[in-house]
Amino acid sequence: MIKVSILTIGDEVRIGQIVNTNAAWLSEKITRLGAFISNHITIGDDFDLMVNEIKEQIKQNDIVITTGGLGPTHDDITKPVLLNIFDDKLVFDDSTFKNIQELFKKQNREISERNKLQAYVPSKAKILTNLVGTAPGLLFEFDDKAIFSLPGVPSEMKFITENFILNYISNLIKLKNDEIILYKTLNVAGIFESNLADIIGPPEEFLGDNSSLAFLPSYKGIRLRIGTIQPNFDKAQNEIERISQIIYSKAGEYIWGEDDKDLTFEIGKLLKEKKLTLSVAESCTGGLLGGEITKISGSSEYFMGGIISYSNEVKINQLGVNKSTIELYGAVSFETASEMAINVKKLFKTDIGISITGIAGPTGGTPEKPVGTVFIGISYLNQIKVNKYVFGNDRNINRERAIGSSLLLLYQTLIKL
Amino acid sequence: MIKVSILTIGDEVRIGQIVNTNAAWLSEKITRLGAFISNHITIGDDFDLMVNEIKEQIKQNDIVITTGGLGPTHDDITKPVLLNIFDDKLVFDDSTFKNIQELFKKQNREISERNKLQAYVPSKAKILTNLVGTAPGLLFEFDDKAIFSLPGVPSEMKFITENFILNYISNLIKLKNDEIILYKTLNVAGIFESNLADIIGPPEEFLGDNSSLAFLPSYKGIRLRIGTIQPNFDKAQNEIERISQIIYSKAGEYIWGEDDKDLTFEIGKLLKEKKLTLSVAESCTGGLLGGEITKISGSSEYFMGGIISYSNEVKINQLGVNKSTIELYGAVSFETASEMAINVKKLFKTDIGISITGIAGPTGGTPEKPVGTVFIGISYLNQIKVNKYVFGNDRNINRERAIGSSLLLLYQTLIKL
Repeated sequence: MIKVSILTIGDEVRIGQIVNTNAAWLSEKITRLGAFISNHITIGDDFDLMVNEIKEQIKQNDIVITTGGLGPTHDDITKPVLLNIFDDKLVFDDSTFKNIQELFKKQNREISERNKLQAYVPSKAKILTNLVGTAPGLLFEFDDKAIFSLPGVPSEMKFITENFILNYISNLIKLKNDEIILYKTLNVAGIFESNLADIIGPPEEFLGDNSSLAFLPSYKGIRLRIGTIQPNFDKAQNEIERISQIIYSKAGEYIWGEDDKDLTFEIGKLLKEKKLTLSVAESCTGGLLGGEITKISGSSEYFMGGIISYSNEVKINQLGVNKSTIELYGAVSFETASEMAINVKKLFKTDIGISITGIAGPTGGTPEKPVGTVFIGISYLNQIKVNKYVFGNDRNINRERAIGSSLLLLYQTLIKL
Repeated sequence: MIKVSILTIGDEVRIGQIVNTNAAWLSEKITRLGAFISNHITIGDDFDLMVNEIKEQIKQNDIVITTGGLGPTHDDITKPVLLNIFDDKLVFDDSTFKNIQELFKKQNREISERNKLQAYVPSKAKILTNLVGTAPGLLFEFDDKAIFSLPGVPSEMKFITENFILNYISNLIKLKNDEIILYKTLNVAGIFESNLADIIGPPEEFLGDNSSLAFLPSYKGIRLRIGTIQPNFDKAQNEIERISQIIYSKAGEYIWGEDDKDLTFEIGKLLKEKKLTLSVAESCTGGLLGGEITKISGSSEYFMGGIISYSNEVKINQLGVNKSTIELYGAVSFETASEMAINVKKLFKTDIGISITGIAGPTGGTPEKPVGTVFIGISYLNQIKVNKYVFGNDRNINRERAIGSSLLLLYQTLIKL
């Protein structure tokens, strides 16, 4: 099994001013190849600690990936640390300098002496060209082991990983041809966990001894994670395929994508395929659903816009909800959600209108409608459907769950249209 | 110096299916007290590894905080690990069971045998009551060292930290009365980094030998981080106060809050104080600004709503932007942003209207208006102001920067009203 340690370097991460998204991103990509992530370690910009930790982790793992500490300031000491470990020295690298020159030219900026320093690289390292930033990635190979050193800026870290590291690890796994753990995740929507379990039946009937099936429910649906440990890559892939085909044959209609597929993206694809347009009317989510839908480049093809009707006046005056509906049933009700969805669809001349109205909390709840009560409506053709949800007490989680639930409702509606 | 290690336990974090926000949150809170975070370590649900890592880290640190592995399933092995380390056994804890009963009663759920297991706790641990979940926190003390063990669910981890751990560490620091590092962050808005540096002058003129001042610019403004290392807590606090007073005296008008204060929250406070109302008209951000403003509980007092005018038709039909304005100047222009802000303010009868229109990318740019070009308008009283920004190439970062910039513009406008 190829063992990998992810080493994050930087005081900003250590003291909590930055959340370590790099480690999760790297682990997810590398795990999916069939390598084993041993650990994530975060330490500060401390020379001795860095030397010790890199030496320790490369002893225990096949690959160490460091992120951070490759920038041009005096805090950035990953290069000196690597020079120390490999008893190496810096050399000027023409192609790196050319890349820096081109980046600065694009941005109409002058290259400073400090920037030029970034073209000096350890002589024993392979250079992993970074086309989106000034610090190249570095690769040291020795005794069947490898240390990758990447910049901490997520876009640069991702560029180098996708262009060099994933292939490297993938090839290594096939070459080594020894025991591996492989995962595949099937993303499910439109069914309760217990019903899904019934449809799939007892997993032990189709899982081998070395395979597992995990149900990972969240407010964004349920992820089914198939895992297997096998003597080599091909056997693992075959076993994953065998199990996933069984699950597809039983629950395929509820599976909207695999692994890191994005539900909002899939919804956009469906809307484009079916040439349908969409508008939103949002109360307690304040615009987050529109924000989520428009994260997709090209969403202007199907998303026209919406009304954030946070106050009742806006619900009445802008969205045309009947005053009497709100007085009679409340702003958080089947009836209001229904009128919001129908009216926004009409006003914006779209094929589909979605509405969200709820009590995000922490205040505003009543015994009848506690905090967390959310109504989500969807209007399409001449039909209207409104679902009621009762989430929990946390304002932000309630809002996120409302977004997740409205995406699921939209997806379920779309696949039937 | 009190040294703390943050140990995150769980395969979901290790394989990257969950981003480790717990470690950042804990580190930020604990660093601010004056303790030193040595590292963050993430490992999977592996008994031997967990035993070794806890033993190793408590050797090198005064405090180890573990999160995760305290749930009721067979994967959750933090309790058995701690029993092994401390040669301890489980005992039934009445008060924990009562707490579980009350939680289930509130949610109208039956307690299963598995849930009841959570009332069994190590006999040598102090129980840190968890009022928001079923797994209590645990504290083991020995030889001047402490191991805190917390559930991984962020809301539960935060509850126990805020109610027990922060005070514990704070008291320990005062008691030990030895060398500490203390930080304070001043949040600045409405001024460029270079101008801020000019106003503040050469830091070495007012910083002592053991103090530092870091400029941390981001699209949400600039954070000024004062740091000092001193022989004890009082001296450190005095030094931080001395330096921050000097900075306030020079740049006070641009400082909107300290440490983890939230700009959106501060804007809400100002709107309430000044009894002003707000509406938004969003194009490329698709509703994210409304979503950001309404994350604040009580925002309905000042936020009425807005129009997500993603398509030009919506800009014209719903928002009343002149068709000729869009034809003549384009949807991304001073003129369109101006009309959007003025019109939404009028339509929604608010005191302030904010507009955002831009090219988020990655496509849609022109030589004249490249990807990343964003116009943000603010209309208040009888005035209109529109700023032009040119951000970068990344769609999501451009949208985030547009939100950050519109909040800064709103804040700067509000403090002058």
